[in-house]
Amino acid sequence: MMIPQEILEKIDKNRQRYVEELLGFLRIPSVSTYTRHAQDVRKAAEWVLHHLKRLGLPAQLHETGGHPVVTARSPFQPDLPTLLIYGHYDVQPPEPMEEWITPPFSPSIRDGCVYARGATDDKGQFFTYLKAIEAVLAVTSRLPINVKVLVEGEEEIGSPNLEGFLKRHRTDLKADAVAVSDGSQFSRGVPAITYGLRGLSYFQIDLQGPRIDVHSGSFGGVTANPAQALAQVLAQMKNPDGTVAIPGFYESVVPLEAWERQELAALSFDEGGLKAYLGVDELPGEPGYTVLERKSARPTLDVNGIWGGFQGEGAKTIIPAKAGAKVSMRLVPNQSPSVISALFKQYVESLTPPGVRVTVTELHRAEPVLVSRDCTGIRAAARAIEIGFGKTPVFIREGGSIPIVNVLKEVLEIDSILLMGWGSPDDGPHSPNERLFLEDFHRGVRSAAALLYALAP
Amino acid sequence: MMIPQEILEKIDKNRQRYVEELLGFLRIPSVSTYTRHAQDVRKAAEWVLHHLKRLGLPAQLHETGGHPVVTARSPFQPDLPTLLIYGHYDVQPPEPMEEWITPPFSPSIRDGCVYARGATDDKGQFFTYLKAIEAVLAVTSRLPINVKVLVEGEEEIGSPNLEGFLKRHRTDLKADAVAVSDGSQFSRGVPAITYGLRGLSYFQIDLQGPRIDVHSGSFGGVTANPAQALAQVLAQMKNPDGTVAIPGFYESVVPLEAWERQELAALSFDEGGLKAYLGVDELPGEPGYTVLERKSARPTLDVNGIWGGFQGEGAKTIIPAKAGAKVSMRLVPNQSPSVISALFKQYVESLTPPGVRVTVTELHRAEPVLVSRDCTGIRAAARAIEIGFGKTPVFIREGGSIPIVNVLKEVLEIDSILLMGWGSPDDGPHSPNERLFLEDFHRGVRSAAALLYALAP
Repeated sequence: MMIPQEILEKIDKNRQRYVEELLGFLRIPSVSTYTRHAQDVRKAAEWVLHHLKRLGLPAQLHETGGHPVVTARSPFQPDLPTLLIYGHYDVQPPEPMEEWITPPFSPSIRDGCVYARGATDDKGQFFTYLKAIEAVLAVTSRLPINVKVLVEGEEEIGSPNLEGFLKRHRTDLKADAVAVSDGSQFSRGVPAITYGLRGLSYFQIDLQGPRIDVHSGSFGGVTANPAQALAQVLAQMKNPDGTVAIPGFYESVVPLEAWERQELAALSFDEGGLKAYLGVDELPGEPGYTVLERKSARPTLDVNGIWGGFQGEGAKTIIPAKAGAKVSMRLVPNQSPSVISALFKQYVESLTPPGVRVTVTELHRAEPVLVSRDCTGIRAAARAIEIGFGKTPVFIREGGSIPIVNVLKEVLEIDSILLMGWGSPDDGPHSPNERLFLEDFHRGVRSAAALLYALAP
Repeated sequence: MMIPQEILEKIDKNRQRYVEELLGFLRIPSVSTYTRHAQDVRKAAEWVLHHLKRLGLPAQLHETGGHPVVTARSPFQPDLPTLLIYGHYDVQPPEPMEEWITPPFSPSIRDGCVYARGATDDKGQFFTYLKAIEAVLAVTSRLPINVKVLVEGEEEIGSPNLEGFLKRHRTDLKADAVAVSDGSQFSRGVPAITYGLRGLSYFQIDLQGPRIDVHSGSFGGVTANPAQALAQVLAQMKNPDGTVAIPGFYESVVPLEAWERQELAALSFDEGGLKAYLGVDELPGEPGYTVLERKSARPTLDVNGIWGGFQGEGAKTIIPAKAGAKVSMRLVPNQSPSVISALFKQYVESLTPPGVRVTVTELHRAEPVLVSRDCTGIRAAARAIEIGFGKTPVFIREGGSIPIVNVLKEVLEIDSILLMGWGSPDDGPHSPNERLFLEDFHRGVRSAAALLYALAP
């Protein structure tokens, strides 16, 4: 079914109000990884709950072991397909604070963008669906398909409670397709449907040397230095050519198919623009693969954080007692986070030198995903994006992880996973000055509304 | 000349009061490396100034480009030798704060020790000389030798202004010997005279990758990671056997003489006690040298601090924009900090991988020192320690640096450098819960008074 023109006009007319409402959502500092923000995270959940109720959808806030899950569903209409809309109301930590031009939780509009933590990841993108539902109901007073909404508050910490929640509510959440807008277009103005996501294995390494920081003059030469040991451990994570050195790391990697490499090569990817965005002269990485392949379809390892000893101004002559790092790997099909976890722990332990004690803690994991491109849902998504953006989408794989995608697939047995990012790739999710173009937000609302009709028989 | 018994009795009688006065000195948080403590550092200088004046010594506070220098001198008596007493009133930063049992600047007495930052390094040790002068003057109303006092406030940041100051006041500060109590006994109850000190080269390395922290999913595989690069740079500072890998590092090292190795081997060094103090099972280090040789007479390299990216609770999936480290080397005769500086910078630059920009900043340097053991000053010091501690001192080399020693030697042309530590080696200078045994403090006051007489004709 085609979306009635009046709905799109309604969306165009209310564009400004939608943005104002979004700003209220962005003001809530719902940083899920910080326990000190637990009340703010709850506030964001309640904001979503009230918003869904205002749309006239029966909605519920569910307690979990961690942050709450909010669900809603339209009144059931038999013989119509059901779309599950997934989003998350939690955000990444805003640090480093000093890099933000305007504060992360005081949304600021400039140059046609809204700047705030969560603008693109995922508040601004997820919110488009609520506005689409509102516009449809305002014009027609019923939705063309059945809609279920699922919004969690733990995406940025690996959704530890969602799998259990889905298992308990398996029947209530049954759907024919699931829509997830938590990524981006291929490039600004080139909308995309994502059919692959990398997985994730995220660890913390803690090393202990002497029981306290000690004088490097008195004890230098006779006690192991945990910061030096950490450097040695981390250095050996990579081979000189940039590949990951963990034994067995590449064993289960499914090679890129020739047709897929051709398709990726056909996309006009702007390497100069990427260099400018990153502020670097080179884009080093695994030999034998293009930049686009390396950033979306090949596995990687990165040190996300590192610490130990004296970080202050000037000089302090100590051997630190402790040092540590956060290390994560992006995985591709068919790498399994549980296998990688065992390989990583074993390797780190084997590299730790004498005189230093090591603890490896897994903090986060996500399975890599490849979804079928050949289904009615994907075709409907492509039509919806054509209406919303005025362009046919390209098909891409994304370098990031949306851990929940695999869980939705497995637990709810939904094959039709519609991954459509409304944002631009340089929106800076997880970075300072995260933003969302208001034009992208608007196109997202239009696409979301069009999707409800495209899925209708 | 032998110290009159009444002076030692006076010291014994006033022991409690001396401690109470020391507590007042220790309460001043004179952390020289933190600009926010500049007023506290000045307060400590003024405390010393007033104390010297109370002793009846004409004293002066001198402005420098940084923290002030305090000097004093006894009324000149011709035909008597002159002793210059050196000390420093600044202290190391107290971090990590959470490790202190009682706050670093609220001195606490327990188990016969005073616990506070600066207790042993160097407020508690230097203060013994002021109490010694006070006791001598109280009994005899004149000192048996000429005394000059020089107290600086920048020792813990490498004394950047002292050399210039000494050059400007070369004539005023002329002396036959200089006493420095800024180290420790060989082991508690085994007093020592130190004839060697390691030098120091201290650097900060700053690495810049992407201009901002970026999402490790979106950009993992295409941008250099400065934390990973830092690990690679630091790992290559050491060879697998623990020796320093900087090309040319060992080139100018004067080998330990056979007689010196025999003398060091004859000292009963408690390796089990060292392990227990450090809380480690092993004392790894350069092959072919004993623990005592490695900690005092062989050069080393240590990472003093390391940082970059996300250090908070939980997981944040970023590639950091920046990473950095503090790295220092302890040097031995005849390694030159200026040569080492050039070798270090060149090596770090050569190790920095593509896609990362590096800056190396030298923060601190000190020349290694060996002083003559064969002079009347050293013999006098040995006699003074016998009186103060009731034991003949042993001769040792110390692993730490007292940068000023070489400057005193060169600028003031004083060969007779008396390095006598009153504290115990496990006092924890630079560590949390720094302390000084009150018994060591008391013996120090006695030794300092005895030294004034031992140097008198």
